[in-house]
Amino acid sequence: MNRKTGLILALDETSPERALWVASEVRKYVDAIKVNYPLVLSAGMEIVEKLSDMAPVICDFKVADIPNTNRLIVEQVRKRGASGIIVHAFVGSDSLRACVEAADGMDVFAVTEMSHPGGEEFTAKFADDLARTAVSAGASGIIAPATRPERIEHLRKIVGNLLILSPGVGSQGGSPESAIKAGADFIIVGRTIYKSKNPAESAENMVREIGLY
Amino acid sequence: MNRKTGLILALDETSPERALWVASEVRKYVDAIKVNYPLVLSAGMEIVEKLSDMAPVICDFKVADIPNTNRLIVEQVRKRGASGIIVHAFVGSDSLRACVEAADGMDVFAVTEMSHPGGEEFTAKFADDLARTAVSAGASGIIAPATRPERIEHLRKIVGNLLILSPGVGSQGGSPESAIKAGADFIIVGRTIYKSKNPAESAENMVREIGLY
Repeated sequence: MNRKTGLILALDETSPERALWVASEVRKYVDAIKVNYPLVLSAGMEIVEKLSDMAPVICDFKVADIPNTNRLIVEQVRKRGASGIIVHAFVGSDSLRACVEAADGMDVFAVTEMSHPGGEEFTAKFADDLARTAVSAGASGIIAPATRPERIEHLRKIVGNLLILSPGVGSQGGSPESAIKAGADFIIVGRTIYKSKNPAESAENMVREIGLY
Repeated sequence: MNRKTGLILALDETSPERALWVASEVRKYVDAIKVNYPLVLSAGMEIVEKLSDMAPVICDFKVADIPNTNRLIVEQVRKRGASGIIVHAFVGSDSLRACVEAADGMDVFAVTEMSHPGGEEFTAKFADDLARTAVSAGASGIIAPATRPERIEHLRKIVGNLLILSPGVGSQGGSPESAIKAGADFIIVGRTIYKSKNPAESAENMVREIGLY
């Protein structure tokens, strides 16, 4: 992915049928679809292939293992046609580098701080170091919470031209405008779109709100 | 699982056929079989069901997400008949507690420090806090590296009667005797067994070495 303002759907559905329907409804409004393990463990990795036919897919697997296991996980994801993967920097630079090497051009995004309360206990304290680890390991970008725009602004200074993907918009209270103003490139939106009765309309509204139209 | 000296096979195969064959060969020598994502992403969660027919299965998924996602992942694992799951404590006590609640009796093991070089950058520095988080969240036990028995001894003081599972034995250089002497309950062995031409013989040898015979 290249730097621009864009929208990523966090497709946190566990029903594959509903997930595929939502994806087909919103594909023209989103730059990528982010999937997590609850969907993949229920539907199998075939869902990544099916979704990849509709939009670029980012596997939000928060990969957090030793280098060799990380490499094997990233290889499985690449084989299914995903365009990106989200990994933890907390497990160290060698583990992160193993992801970047195995990604072979696929985007690798490293988690810096997390937006839930428990994220304050460890990840938020070392977010700067985690962001530096992402830069030195050759990641494509980082994940930083839209709920804390001042942190996005700060982390932008550390990661330079790397991509910043920001979750926490909508139901979790983050404002897309302030996240973008703070330096986020892509806004990640979940429930507001996939739980909507009309996901296409909700995605279109979000795209307007972000200012892409 | 209850406290005792035992052997866990780290079944880090990616071929489901080989994985099932190894499991059937060694089932009578091991207390549990640990599987990781590379196998599950290649073979599907059905492999967890099939292996569970042979021995208790621990899903080494190093779960490291927000509480709600953690909960959904643990539910998927429980549904397939696994007996345990390995999760990260660094995502905070709420995320860990969500795993314990969703586990509903299934064992939850929290990673403290990791044995690879990158593990020194973050996890090892906060291993004591991570172990305390495991205790307070109600985890069944922790993971601590057999390659550093002095750390097992130290962490045992923090976790009291919780289980300690120790990887790093065999190919990675850790000695089962010194890990057990330091306070580990279960020794996790991978390549030495599953890469062996005769996995049953290798498992039996390991069981003798640990002193179970």
